[in-house]
Amino acid sequence: SFAQGCEDDAPASSTSGVPSTSNMTFFGYIQPMFESHFTDANENTFKFKRARLGVRGRVNRSFSYYVALETSDFVSSDGNVYLLDAFITYDKHEWTKFSMGSFKQPFGLEVTTACHALTTIDRAIVSDQLVAPQRDLGVMMLGGTSKTKFRYSLALMNGRGLGVKDNNTKKDVIGRASYKLFDFLTVGGSFRYGYPNNNDLDRTTYGAEFLVNYKDFALQGEYIYDEGDYNRAADGGCGSTPLELGEKRAGAYVMATYNVNEKLQPVFKYEYFDQDLDIKKVGYQEMMTLGVNYFINAKTRLQVNYQNKIETGLSIDNDALLMQLQVRF
Amino acid sequence: SFAQGCEDDAPASSTSGVPSTSNMTFFGYIQPMFESHFTDANENTFKFKRARLGVRGRVNRSFSYYVALETSDFVSSDGNVYLLDAFITYDKHEWTKFSMGSFKQPFGLEVTTACHALTTIDRAIVSDQLVAPQRDLGVMMLGGTSKTKFRYSLALMNGRGLGVKDNNTKKDVIGRASYKLFDFLTVGGSFRYGYPNNNDLDRTTYGAEFLVNYKDFALQGEYIYDEGDYNRAADGGCGSTPLELGEKRAGAYVMATYNVNEKLQPVFKYEYFDQDLDIKKVGYQEMMTLGVNYFINAKTRLQVNYQNKIETGLSIDNDALLMQLQVRF
Amino acid sequence: SFAQGCEDDAPASSTSGVPSTSNMTFFGYIQPMFESHFTDANENTFKFKRARLGVRGRVNRSFSYYVALETSDFVSSDGNVYLLDAFITYDKHEWTKFSMGSFKQPFGLEVTTACHALTTIDRAIVSDQLVAPQRDLGVMMLGGTSKTKFRYSLALMNGRGLGVKDNNTKKDVIGRASYKLFDFLTVGGSFRYGYPNNNDLDRTTYGAEFLVNYKDFALQGEYIYDEGDYNRAADGGCGSTPLELGEKRAGAYVMATYNVNEKLQPVFKYEYFDQDLDIKKVGYQEMMTLGVNYFINAKTRLQVNYQNKIETGLSIDNDALLMQLQVRF
Repeated sequence: SFAQGCEDDAPASSTSGVPSTSNMTFFGYIQPMFESHFTDANENTFKFKRARLGVRGRVNRSFSYYVALETSDFVSSDGNVYLLDAFITYDKHEWTKFSMGSFKQPFGLEVTTACHALTTIDRAIVSDQLVAPQRDLGVMMLGGTSKTKFRYSLALMNGRGLGVKDNNTKKDVIGRASYKLFDFLTVGGSFRYGYPNNNDLDRTTYGAEFLVNYKDFALQGEYIYDEGDYNRAADGGCGSTPLELGEKRAGAYVMATYNVNEKLQPVFKYEYFDQDLDIKKVGYQEMMTLGVNYFINAKTRLQVNYQNKIETGLSIDNDALLMQLQVRF
Repeated sequence: SFAQGCEDDAPASSTSGVPSTSNMTFFGYIQPMFESHFTDANENTFKFKRARLGVRGRVNRSFSYYVALETSDFVSSDGNVYLLDAFITYDKHEWTKFSMGSFKQPFGLEVTTACHALTTIDRAIVSDQLVAPQRDLGVMMLGGTSKTKFRYSLALMNGRGLGVKDNNTKKDVIGRASYKLFDFLTVGGSFRYGYPNNNDLDRTTYGAEFLVNYKDFALQGEYIYDEGDYNRAADGGCGSTPLELGEKRAGAYVMATYNVNEKLQPVFKYEYFDQDLDIKKVGYQEMMTLGVNYFINAKTRLQVNYQNKIETGLSIDNDALLMQLQVRF
Repeated sequence: SFAQGCEDDAPASSTSGVPSTSNMTFFGYIQPMFESHFTDANENTFKFKRARLGVRGRVNRSFSYYVALETSDFVSSDGNVYLLDAFITYDKHEWTKFSMGSFKQPFGLEVTTACHALTTIDRAIVSDQLVAPQRDLGVMMLGGTSKTKFRYSLALMNGRGLGVKDNNTKKDVIGRASYKLFDFLTVGGSFRYGYPNNNDLDRTTYGAEFLVNYKDFALQGEYIYDEGDYNRAADGGCGSTPLELGEKRAGAYVMATYNVNEKLQPVFKYEYFDQDLDIKKVGYQEMMTLGVNYFINAKTRLQVNYQNKIETGLSIDNDALLMQLQVRF
């Protein structure tokens, strides 16, 4: 179980559910895409969303490892290849597993969804802006799997993101828990408490989430509230531009999908983000995403998203059309 | 068939010619070399020409993928590892295959020759200077293989090269076609029409090529003509320094080889490049390359090249001796 | 035998000792760690010491290859992924093997110890400061293995380190030889003579080493003396900060371990380094390292080191506690 929000659960290697020693697996996926922004000066370009290569495996019954590189030039701020997730996991006991290394902060349903399994091409603005840095260095205790009713993660991390040492001595605490109330309903909550820049100014973040699965229909939503200091140098998730935040900020989304058949899945997402709760109207944004996912085969997926940014006042030309092809291997 | 000029054709996976599902292949090659420039201040150094690692494979009968990293510090202008070729190919139909991602611009025989299969250590100056960016982001339609008489590629690309978004909304069109007239003679032509920097100033490029194979003797040649705007920031191919170009520029080469036996192959190449056709003598250069390729075994090759730059006026000390060892895996 | 100080000897592929053709092996290791520096402004952080991925293999009976990437953001000065060791080896004859590419300068016991097999988390200061650049580009002749009594390496290298061309025409010569005098005692010596910055100012370095193995007890030590010019831009080994050096500089260490059982190995190391032998007391430093290595299983190791810096005058708060977990694959 490589369960840090980086990958799906690995296939069970034995029927007993106890992991056995197995060999290394090389894996990855690439996401070439075309995007067109209908801004005043129209912009369109071919690019990569992500291009990841990695290895994972198990050294014995108690220890596994996971290492992945981001090789897309369009993710890091300097356009370089970098070590993304790399951690060693002690997973002998299902309810008290431990990981050490770099991995996603365990916060929120959408952030902890594997990047090749996202329902829309972009995560919600609130996920990218408030759960930043999305990836960090530290240790984590976790328990449960996608098959258990209850699941939790509790991490102690630098709070500065990848590639840099912590600049303060206090570590950040991030945690998430989810529970399957009914077969069709899972609810969850997340929190983060940390020191983004120094030992004096703190930051507190809460999140609440739900996921409904009913036949071919799915509905999920999240609300995230965040207050206090933040690190202006931390990238927003997956190459998004970090916004200037006020003392208090919050956002939410709801997303609905329907599986027409095995291949075709339309998606609708509504979201808002307020980068400063104290100043009304400035920095408040709403967006609707209309999209369709087409699963060409088990390893290949085409995604088309239309992002409609909703203005409260005058309408501005800022919609976007995104097309992304993905192959996993 | 990973037929984007990045690799040889993959071995046929079945006798029917229809590709079947197969597993991932990890591949690569390294090219450590020693070069000595007999310039006024003599320069010599050990370095890498290229050092590439990649994976390729097939996800089902219709889709394949190819991902390669350049890890040599001596190729990109900032000396970093970067994502080189990464594309997804829909190759169900031999004559209408489609690729999306990053790959070489399909222009010219030498540029589309796999980098581990080049007959001389360096490509001709004209290939490096005028087919720049050599690699780009986009989509391509292609048909035929190395076994068919006819072969073509037609690409729609950013025109800005790897690692950056397009800075204009017009895309570049690049195409190449070749035809085996006789068993011993193949001829081909290439073109490119695009907008290197903005939506107003265009660029037009033509190329013509021939390849003669007669017993152990081979002769190939190319002529490339280019006019209009160009992107000064685009790297010349494989780490070559981009030259300042005039409104019109052109160049050509002819290259002859003879297989003495299975292992030994002497090579002679004559080339010229004129970086500004309107200003005679300034920026015109000629070069002869005398070399020998020694195929130590199927995976290992030693290349020694002597580059003699021919001056029209006073002779300058600027010749170079290059020695390159290559292992493929 | 991938015997450039990058890896252990590869397992013998046949009983005769003659290497046979074998397939590619993908390998690597990651070293997530936590370090706490008890300086005046206390610093502590999660980070990676190293995170390496590579492939090695054999193309036929005479040629092998080795390619490794450093992916930790905390090693190179710019925090980027880079090509670490990449070389082709002609190893048909045990006593005259040849390598070409990038590898460690063959100098000293500790530098040539594989980075995943180091007894303490950090190498001795003298190893990191005087054997710089630790890795370089060039060619090497070498003979012997870990199973032979005698062993030597002789390299001709740029002397500038990885990722850059040589800036002078004179190459550096680096060599090391070791001999197993008795079953329990191996002694060795190293030298380097080169031109760090130009063709005029040279540099000369000597090293002497011993290694005692007696039952579960091991003791090793090295002394390194260095004089002349040096390259201020060359990184100290593995991300250490390069110190300002005088005309003459030297240092040494002794390190003792005892295998309590198969898993537990306490270690004690004493070292000193004098960055300018001509100026007494300034730049002289002593350090003791108290540590324990715990081999959780054949592939997983936990290391805890306490570094006590010994001041000659007033005691300063500058000790450090390092904890490192390692998984190899």
